[in-house]
Amino acid sequence: MTTNPEPELGPAPGAEKHAHAGSAGTNDKSGEPRAEDRSRAGRPGAIGMGEGDAGVGGGGLPRTSTDRDEDRLARVALTWLVEPGNRTVWGLVQQGGAAATLDLLLRGDLPDGRLRAAAAARAAVGDARRFAEAALRRGEKLGARVVVPSDPEWPGRVADLARLELRTGGRVNQDTRPPLCFWVRGGLPLDEAFERSVAVVGARAATGYGTHVAGEMAYALADRGWTVVSGGAFGIDAAAHRGALAAGGRTVTVLACGVERPYPAGNVALFERIVECGLIVSEWPLGAEPLRHRFLIRNRVIAAATAGTVVVEAAARSGATQTMSRVLALSRPALVVPGPVTSAMSVGCHAILRGNPYARLVTSADDVLEEVGRIGEYLSERPRGPDRRRDALDEESALVLEAVPRRGTSTPEELAAAAGLDLRTVLRRLSLLELAGLVVRREDGIALALDAL
Amino acid sequence: MTTNPEPELGPAPGAEKHAHAGSAGTNDKSGEPRAEDRSRAGRPGAIGMGEGDAGVGGGGLPRTSTDRDEDRLARVALTWLVEPGNRTVWGLVQQGGAAATLDLLLRGDLPDGRLRAAAAARAAVGDARRFAEAALRRGEKLGARVVVPSDPEWPGRVADLARLELRTGGRVNQDTRPPLCFWVRGGLPLDEAFERSVAVVGARAATGYGTHVAGEMAYALADRGWTVVSGGAFGIDAAAHRGALAAGGRTVTVLACGVERPYPAGNVALFERIVECGLIVSEWPLGAEPLRHRFLIRNRVIAAATAGTVVVEAAARSGATQTMSRVLALSRPALVVPGPVTSAMSVGCHAILRGNPYARLVTSADDVLEEVGRIGEYLSERPRGPDRRRDALDEESALVLEAVPRRGTSTPEELAAAAGLDLRTVLRRLSLLELAGLVVRREDGIALALDAL
Repeated sequence: MTTNPEPELGPAPGAEKHAHAGSAGTNDKSGEPRAEDRSRAGRPGAIGMGEGDAGVGGGGLPRTSTDRDEDRLARVALTWLVEPGNRTVWGLVQQGGAAATLDLLLRGDLPDGRLRAAAAARAAVGDARRFAEAALRRGEKLGARVVVPSDPEWPGRVADLARLELRTGGRVNQDTRPPLCFWVRGGLPLDEAFERSVAVVGARAATGYGTHVAGEMAYALADRGWTVVSGGAFGIDAAAHRGALAAGGRTVTVLACGVERPYPAGNVALFERIVECGLIVSEWPLGAEPLRHRFLIRNRVIAAATAGTVVVEAAARSGATQTMSRVLALSRPALVVPGPVTSAMSVGCHAILRGNPYARLVTSADDVLEEVGRIGEYLSERPRGPDRRRDALDEESALVLEAVPRRGTSTPEELAAAAGLDLRTVLRRLSLLELAGLVVRREDGIALALDAL
Repeated sequence: MTTNPEPELGPAPGAEKHAHAGSAGTNDKSGEPRAEDRSRAGRPGAIGMGEGDAGVGGGGLPRTSTDRDEDRLARVALTWLVEPGNRTVWGLVQQGGAAATLDLLLRGDLPDGRLRAAAAARAAVGDARRFAEAALRRGEKLGARVVVPSDPEWPGRVADLARLELRTGGRVNQDTRPPLCFWVRGGLPLDEAFERSVAVVGARAATGYGTHVAGEMAYALADRGWTVVSGGAFGIDAAAHRGALAAGGRTVTVLACGVERPYPAGNVALFERIVECGLIVSEWPLGAEPLRHRFLIRNRVIAAATAGTVVVEAAARSGATQTMSRVLALSRPALVVPGPVTSAMSVGCHAILRGNPYARLVTSADDVLEEVGRIGEYLSERPRGPDRRRDALDEESALVLEAVPRRGTSTPEELAAAAGLDLRTVLRRLSLLELAGLVVRREDGIALALDAL
């Protein structure tokens, strides 16, 4: 978790000015932009975005091949200027596209003073576009590609981060929005790797018990065709990756630094095997250091890109418990392996189970698949329309869906009463219905999705 | 858990016939009879009970000193004739008193053929009243007293067993009704011992981890003035008793055999210390053997007489998990200590936590007191009337109580929605409100208690 002394990739020579704004277009696969974002993009350009520019208007996804290159470059440049997940930047990209947002940031034309200062500080170090061009060239040589939302392999689940609201000490968490792009090493398509995936995460200072359980669980999950996602750290993370590899299965490491130098270096042999059999993924551009705060930003992707997350061992208030708070906020299955109450490495796990009625205790891969299996199987057959989706529902989900009012919203408690089901079942079914696009979560409750009416 | 070769106490010589029926009177402390039982007792004697008999009519509790001796003797005789907790026998005692019920059983004047056959088989072995007289005399010599519902020290919580409905394989469990009497060894008043009490139970084949946790937890609970209740078995039970004794605290063993020969004999030194510092208690008369099925009947008392039950280690489908199903059915705090998922002795614990949304994971005595503490503190100050009781309520309980409709019933889910609280909180508060006599649980939901209106 210490910072890496190696300097970040410097600005590349031969920078050019790109004045073209981001272009329009939507992509069903990416899940972004959503209807609400599209409508917002139609408002007058209060934040100084020229909505009259050619190609702008549909939420910032590129339409043409040139637009796409421009979009990819701008997204890389943006993640070099500002930390991934930034609410303001993501909002601007959704409205006007990545290239126009980059222009805004470089011009300093922003109402958010803190963001303006941060971008200016980075811009003073080097030219963002030159950096991005150099990084993309270097990535090509190293076998690292950049995946953006308009690419077919973009993992759709991360779009749920658009709704993630986390308050820490009364302040809204500023780094919770969906990624702008992913750097990827490895042959698997990114979406395919994440589709039937479970995160297995936990303490670095794991006990023999914890690494044993993580390894066994990952082996069994990988053996049944599930991708094991983790953070590449020592302890539980490494044990999970190794378990999946031992089963000849798939595993994905989500890093908080550049993919060309996975952290920690002590796991280098493991990372090499992961690139062969799975993927190494990061939101940060090549050369990015594994700074402490980046792990917390990274954790939201582990929570959002997977069908569920298992915490095997965790100290109190640790990175793993932070990941779990994101999993719970996303209404994904939050699965916790208990341990001896005498073990400091299980204190965080037990605290999650005691503090969150929706966290579930799991003891085996069977338990894990009981919680996430249905969702994964469901998603593996992509629904085409409301009717098809409704037909595919299990009985309990159908009962919950019927209980959702045609106008307005209901709380999960009201739905439980109306459907005659217990609250836990309702919450699990709601996650499924939400993933299927049949219901949406609003501030005041659950509503029918527009196309489910 | 094996049967004891020692024969049961034989029938005493010099038996007399007692023809007097049980007498009337109610006792607020015992909680029995309830309003519904009183009204039922007024119906014509469809089961052959002479409701015109002197002293009968008020639910079977004795009024005079002679009646009380007669009642005590009859209750002892009844538990010798039929296993404690029997639904039919308890119902008859509630309606017509213990002495009249004993007469009925000895006459064979019963519609329940199975019960008639069982009582006849016992009656053929010896005279029930002679046995009871001899047992009471012997108990006096041994320092073992018999406590009945009309005694001031009768523990009120066991009255909740009157409402316990458990179905096993589609069949209603026949042995779940409140005890008819308790045999008690030790100086503490029985009600005082149980008032602020927590059961700590678990596997006989416990691991070092389990006995360590049980001992530490019991020590801390006893140290704070809570009575530790358990079953006296090897493993977790013994560790819990020892922990409480080590703290100089109170501990109660609830046996499934006669109190003069606590089972298992290997714990004899422990039982001697328990009699000095706490209590040894049993529903079965002196001489009763620890037959296998009696442990399951005994477990309902451990569940009902305490403010909550902690299971420390339990194999799958074990006695401890059976106790827990009774705790849950009684809506008492069902508290579970997790352990390594690799330990067979924690499989039952994890199964309870996975299978029951109302079971709570606990890691320490602090956690336990967080769940049961409020109930205990509340009961330690006996409420005198509805107003006083309402004033004593915490804010959440008051919200739940306000949400209960003045007519009809609501489900916990509906109450949660109306009170704006989560379901778990509502369920916990409902238990408190029920103990305080402010709400009652009916088949179709929660209703206001008559005197809370």
